[in-house]
Amino acid sequence: MTTTTIRGSAGTPVALDLQGADAGPDAVAEGARLSGVEVSLFDGVEIRNDEDPAFAVRSKGDASIVKAAKAVGTGEASALVSAGSTGALLAASLFHVKRIRGVHRPAIAVLVPLPGKPVLLLDAGANVDVRPEHLVQFAYMGAAFMEAVQGVKAPKVGLLSVGEEAKKGTEDVVTAHAQLAAGTLDFAGNVEGNDLAAATVDVVVTDGFTGNVALKLMEGTARTVAGAVRDAIRSGPVSTIGGLLIRGKLGRLRAQLDPNATGGAILLGARRPVIVAHGKSTPEGIANAVRMARRAVDEEVVERTEKALGDAGVLRSAPAASFATKS
Amino acid sequence: MTTTTIRGSAGTPVALDLQGADAGPDAVAEGARLSGVEVSLFDGVEIRNDEDPAFAVRSKGDASIVKAAKAVGTGEASALVSAGSTGALLAASLFHVKRIRGVHRPAIAVLVPLPGKPVLLLDAGANVDVRPEHLVQFAYMGAAFMEAVQGVKAPKVGLLSVGEEAKKGTEDVVTAHAQLAAGTLDFAGNVEGNDLAAATVDVVVTDGFTGNVALKLMEGTARTVAGAVRDAIRSGPVSTIGGLLIRGKLGRLRAQLDPNATGGAILLGARRPVIVAHGKSTPEGIANAVRMARRAVDEEVVERTEKALGDAGVLRSAPAASFATKS
Repeated sequence: MTTTTIRGSAGTPVALDLQGADAGPDAVAEGARLSGVEVSLFDGVEIRNDEDPAFAVRSKGDASIVKAAKAVGTGEASALVSAGSTGALLAASLFHVKRIRGVHRPAIAVLVPLPGKPVLLLDAGANVDVRPEHLVQFAYMGAAFMEAVQGVKAPKVGLLSVGEEAKKGTEDVVTAHAQLAAGTLDFAGNVEGNDLAAATVDVVVTDGFTGNVALKLMEGTARTVAGAVRDAIRSGPVSTIGGLLIRGKLGRLRAQLDPNATGGAILLGARRPVIVAHGKSTPEGIANAVRMARRAVDEEVVERTEKALGDAGVLRSAPAASFATKS
Repeated sequence: MTTTTIRGSAGTPVALDLQGADAGPDAVAEGARLSGVEVSLFDGVEIRNDEDPAFAVRSKGDASIVKAAKAVGTGEASALVSAGSTGALLAASLFHVKRIRGVHRPAIAVLVPLPGKPVLLLDAGANVDVRPEHLVQFAYMGAAFMEAVQGVKAPKVGLLSVGEEAKKGTEDVVTAHAQLAAGTLDFAGNVEGNDLAAATVDVVVTDGFTGNVALKLMEGTARTVAGAVRDAIRSGPVSTIGGLLIRGKLGRLRAQLDPNATGGAILLGARRPVIVAHGKSTPEGIANAVRMARRAVDEEVVERTEKALGDAGVLRSAPAASFATKS
């Protein structure tokens, strides 16, 4: 097993998958060095996007992502980071890192890559089919993350739907709305697509299908609009000069829209922090993902998520409890 | 019944609901005059967004939208336009304009309000829960519209999902994918959120929940990014001067992003063209919606949609046919 440890701040190291980033393993290793965090690097076979993730994770013990996830499962490492196939990362996390007891489904949470106040969107793609109780857990997990890592007191949580009224949306969304309205969160009710972009709440909850479409759509729309602004500016001599005068300011805005700035998405509901780094990560992007993993460990995101779910009474009953009820 | 006819180009008039636009009935009437199209204006009670649309449409015979829809149903008018409650417009259309025979569900189709090649998105909100056969019909209806009204030969149709591979997405999306791949359309397979923004296909098909979220998200993201560009430009003296030099070019870009420019969305699958004008329509926006209705009549969108669905063999079998099969 090829494992290299990169020295950094003390503590159980973060496990980093060397494979899967578009920029290659050297860029990933460089990111580990840049992070200043204690990191264990895992090399091995790559599981690609076009493979069946569950099958590949079960059958390929020599895959880098499997080795890294196992190290987290055994406690040799404290968190997992990969820029490889999201499906493989999810499957390896479910098998080897495992879920918090009572969590139905872990969800991918991501800070929306738009200027303005940070907004957490989840699920961004882990679960394409969800039930109302999944959406309810996502809401509490997202709020716990925003408190622990972003320092937002009593985060406002919105449920993504097609209208503000409690009855708008699919049957599952309407059911989840009723449960969240009766719960202990600062629940802002339904929010719509424009609210997600305008940052009217701190956390936006949705199923993994809608969330994944939404995330990629925001990235694509921002790119299209920014490109159209650039083309408009370059389309005449006067505006070209104007463009030179605003270049510095727009450069800073572009940096805000860059997915490398945040480091990646986090899988909430797993027993250890799992960071889904962008496949297009630069070394700086990898470094940010590793730092995010470290911060999640230090801020005890998992422990706080578990407590928030327990306090709200939305954890799935343990089998023993069901048995007791039946007897 | 208060009906006023505004003279314009000859032909059966377009029925226009005077109620429901944020700008008020006078602005709607002004839009009718601006359109240059023969229009019948229908005044009466307004059905608001917070009412149950089906109940309100059934019980309020004096509602402007009900009168307008009835006029289209009887053939006194050739198409329906409203900037009022979308739910009420849908319900009134189903009751009085009715569906094309064999269409499961009409869908709201809208040209994506982003710069670049026109892309039709459907369903943008008529049906929050859909089955695979609905998605398949949406694909053929959208392609027929792009051929008839936008003059696109053999439009490329994509199915919105969370990955390019045929197996990615919900079970319903995977089933629809297989049916579309076996059909007669120029089917581009699955597309993702970024493809919608980058205009890689001519028609993007999805359920009304995801489509509605996506549409509002694009509008919101474009507004947020454009606002951030403006703020960045105004944040320093040099860039402020630069901003003055590019103002003319950006004004033209803003006009492209304006939902008033296209006139509105169209309900495909109804027996007459039904145009969903933006609630925030200006008189010019209403005029564009009326012109779109007129063009849909002249270009025989309904007839061509029906033929496309029939040729593809995706119309729902008539009850008589089922009976024949059983006997």
